[in-house]
Amino acid sequence: MKHICLAAAASIALATPSLAEDEAPVEEQAAPSPNEIVNAAPSKDWVQIAAEDLLVMTLAPTHDGKRREVVIQLMPAPFSQGWVENIRTLARAKWYDGISVNRVQDNYVVQWGDPGHDNPEGEGIETKPLPEGLNVMVEDDYTSRTKGEDYFSKLRLSDAYAGWAAFLDGWPVGTFYETVHSLDFEAWPVHCYGMVGVGRNYSPDTGSGAELYTVIGHAPRHLDRNIALAGRIISGMEHLSSLPRGSGVLGFYTEEEANLRTPILSIRVASDLPESQRPQFEYLSTESETFAAYAEARANRRDPFFIVPAGGADICNIPVPIREVAGAE
Amino acid sequence: MKHICLAAAASIALATPSLAEDEAPVEEQAAPSPNEIVNAAPSKDWVQIAAEDLLVMTLAPTHDGKRREVVIQLMPAPFSQGWVENIRTLARAKWYDGISVNRVQDNYVVQWGDPGHDNPEGEGIETKPLPEGLNVMVEDDYTSRTKGEDYFSKLRLSDAYAGWAAFLDGWPVGTFYETVHSLDFEAWPVHCYGMVGVGRNYSPDTGSGAELYTVIGHAPRHLDRNIALAGRIISGMEHLSSLPRGSGVLGFYTEEEANLRTPILSIRVASDLPESQRPQFEYLSTESETFAAYAEARANRRDPFFIVPAGGADICNIPVPIREVAGAE
Repeated sequence: MKHICLAAAASIALATPSLAEDEAPVEEQAAPSPNEIVNAAPSKDWVQIAAEDLLVMTLAPTHDGKRREVVIQLMPAPFSQGWVENIRTLARAKWYDGISVNRVQDNYVVQWGDPGHDNPEGEGIETKPLPEGLNVMVEDDYTSRTKGEDYFSKLRLSDAYAGWAAFLDGWPVGTFYETVHSLDFEAWPVHCYGMVGVGRNYSPDTGSGAELYTVIGHAPRHLDRNIALAGRIISGMEHLSSLPRGSGVLGFYTEEEANLRTPILSIRVASDLPESQRPQFEYLSTESETFAAYAEARANRRDPFFIVPAGGADICNIPVPIREVAGAE
Repeated sequence: MKHICLAAAASIALATPSLAEDEAPVEEQAAPSPNEIVNAAPSKDWVQIAAEDLLVMTLAPTHDGKRREVVIQLMPAPFSQGWVENIRTLARAKWYDGISVNRVQDNYVVQWGDPGHDNPEGEGIETKPLPEGLNVMVEDDYTSRTKGEDYFSKLRLSDAYAGWAAFLDGWPVGTFYETVHSLDFEAWPVHCYGMVGVGRNYSPDTGSGAELYTVIGHAPRHLDRNIALAGRIISGMEHLSSLPRGSGVLGFYTEEEANLRTPILSIRVASDLPESQRPQFEYLSTESETFAAYAEARANRRDPFFIVPAGGADICNIPVPIREVAGAE
């Protein structure tokens, strides 16, 4: 079974490989690092991601022939399901095949879609009408659960944008303080590194899911509740974040830079792939004791490199651990 | 006079260029965007950065011959001056010439130094002994100022890491709540996107300034007070952030990837360059009314794209505006 922990956290060792953190001798009493806590999680704390919620995006190979594959996890109910369903529909209609990455703005986003804007909305493909509110979950969406405290992981963080931030079913969300203790429930996913959102125009109800972006810099949290999030990159992020920046307005490639657009060969829903080709991923339950210990250790680093534990962390600096697992055969 | 505003903030328009935010028709009553506020700043609000505080780092050209130049602003007193002075000394000894970028870890850092570790500390060059504390400013460092409130810009933000965050002479800093209202003064620079720090080994007093890194992802604020910050990238960040990620431990390039290391041709203190070649930059005074209005607009976006103003912002999402200006002649 192949395990790849995607939430690698590391220090700034001067580091020849022989000096790197992971290989250095650790004192017997040293506190475990966040990664060590995650690696010791019992298997019951890992939750499999449904193949229907995974997209495999294949970019054109690099100039020297290297494969570039990106895996996106779509957001589960009750968030953003109008967009998520449209994205699956567009993928199944092969609408995304042959589009390209058209915008790379440093410390902001990478955006892909229809470069010629011949059909930026995927017209002719039967997508669903979009929800009115911008992927904000309200109490009614979640009646199958107990109200209040039980919605969230034990961890709730003070937050400059939302009042409170928390984790819900493996996703970082913003919420209001009142939400936790009352019936006035509202929560929404937040723009952390690697989150995938739905490009739109000025009107809030535009944006079908045909045009997508991911965050490649410091979390642009001012976009929360202003634009729909629909998923996150869980593998291959480096193929997008390292693309050359565009010199046009908002980081779009100019006409002279058209050769910098990276072609997207295909986007497939993983459940449509032959079983042997389906990627399989698990996330660490954000309701688990392991996650609480991991988050606490992210907020208070005590592993050998550190001198001063911070005493806190912002929600986007506690990435939810996700790992690839081999097939069950 | 050439003006380039480096603190570009933009939205996620579906955007053909004709739909992009900057060119869209704006209603007469629309609130100004953060950039519009900055662009309207009176010239007295801009502060020139001393040439002695600027480093020009020239990377090897790209494969297709494009120039790559990065400008670093060194941190002013009272922060990190031991490292800053060593960095100037190493630059003047041309110790950096011929080193390379050896580590690129996604959503974390780009690090440059001596790839062979033949002389990672710049031995033989007369550097100064390093300060004991890790670039934390205490009251004694700043006796020429009034204590308390007057140290900071008007803006103080609640902060998950430091209790409070604020701006001081154009730099984002963490501090304690008590600091603002008492004599128990302590403040320190924070790890925002583009900040430049001093690689070190396990012992806190290692790290001469020979090995440097910059942040290329979500602010790794857990490093604050654990590793010395010495400056920030103010131009050419995209040449570092778009480099291919290393597949070795901590994002170091492996021996097989040695060809991915980007050579650094030279690092020069701008004041040592002929006057005609010296870059000139200004930052927006963080004590100015314009900065207060800019920060407020970052926290509460009211320009046409936005629906819900956040009501807050984190300090690393309020980048200090910096602009390049042409020579005075």
